[in-house]
Amino acid sequence: LSIAPENPVFALDSRLQQDTHVLGDFPLCRLLLSNDLNYPWFILVPRRSNITEVFQLSDDDRLQLWQETNTLAATLNTLFGADKINIGALGNVVSQLHMHVIVRYKVDVAWPAPVWGKVAAVAYNEDQLAGIRARLEGALGDDFQFAGA
Amino acid sequence: LSIAPENPVFALDSRLQQDTHVLGDFPLCRLLLSNDLNYPWFILVPRRSNITEVFQLSDDDRLQLWQETNTLAATLNTLFGADKINIGALGNVVSQLHMHVIVRYKVDVAWPAPVWGKVAAVAYNEDQLAGIRARLEGALGDDFQFAGA
Repeated sequence: LSIAPENPVFALDSRLQQDTHVLGDFPLCRLLLSNDLNYPWFILVPRRSNITEVFQLSDDDRLQLWQETNTLAATLNTLFGADKINIGALGNVVSQLHMHVIVRYKVDVAWPAPVWGKVAAVAYNEDQLAGIRARLEGALGDDFQFAGA
Repeated sequence: LSIAPENPVFALDSRLQQDTHVLGDFPLCRLLLSNDLNYPWFILVPRRSNITEVFQLSDDDRLQLWQETNTLAATLNTLFGADKINIGALGNVVSQLHMHVIVRYKVDVAWPAPVWGKVAAVAYNEDQLAGIRARLEGALGDDFQFAGA
């Protein structure tokens, strides 16, 4: 797959910016951590502008999004010992295309309901956030570039 | 892509069977219509047994699932004039891997919330169901085989 250079006008949606921490970049997607310690909740955002639906991506980008989604899902499943991984591209509120990849446990606060709008988010503190980053170190493969690294 | 023959022991989950109408088959997935006229809500189920997560599929099957998801999403978007397409593989209640592809409107009863668990399902009557089938005729491509056809 040939992934075109980042669109120079890519900008993360302001709502996503506000509700997440930037972890780094896969070849196509920015990886975000939802600022909600109720669940290990990750979000992939293709660094492309003006895309709201998966079928608007080029064929190469779409395959790459699917591959990054799949890699992330499998990695998180092992790393966090998930009972279930939830994957979803909804975008009813934030239209910029983004893919949720969420670790679910049978004992989490929303189980078995989907996480959206279920309980209020609980922000990570700095230590907890560092813990998540440390846990991901080395697990996401050579394709992943940590932010600030 | 080479799609292996249907696993002879594939059986649709009983809960999915109860809550949906079978529309037909793509090369990999059975296509279901959720029996809820609140939204044009479709579900793709790979005809494989003992699969609960996308990353458990073979590489070929996973690409095919993504392709069928994408084709269905683009087709429904045009056919139903969607404001947004919601795509999701959750599986917290029904563990058999299934992909939701849901047509959303800014005026639907749950907007902008996700559809799951929001309002009670309203079953289609026979005429409405025939209307949906007729609308899909010819739109899903030659790869799609209608049930009973």
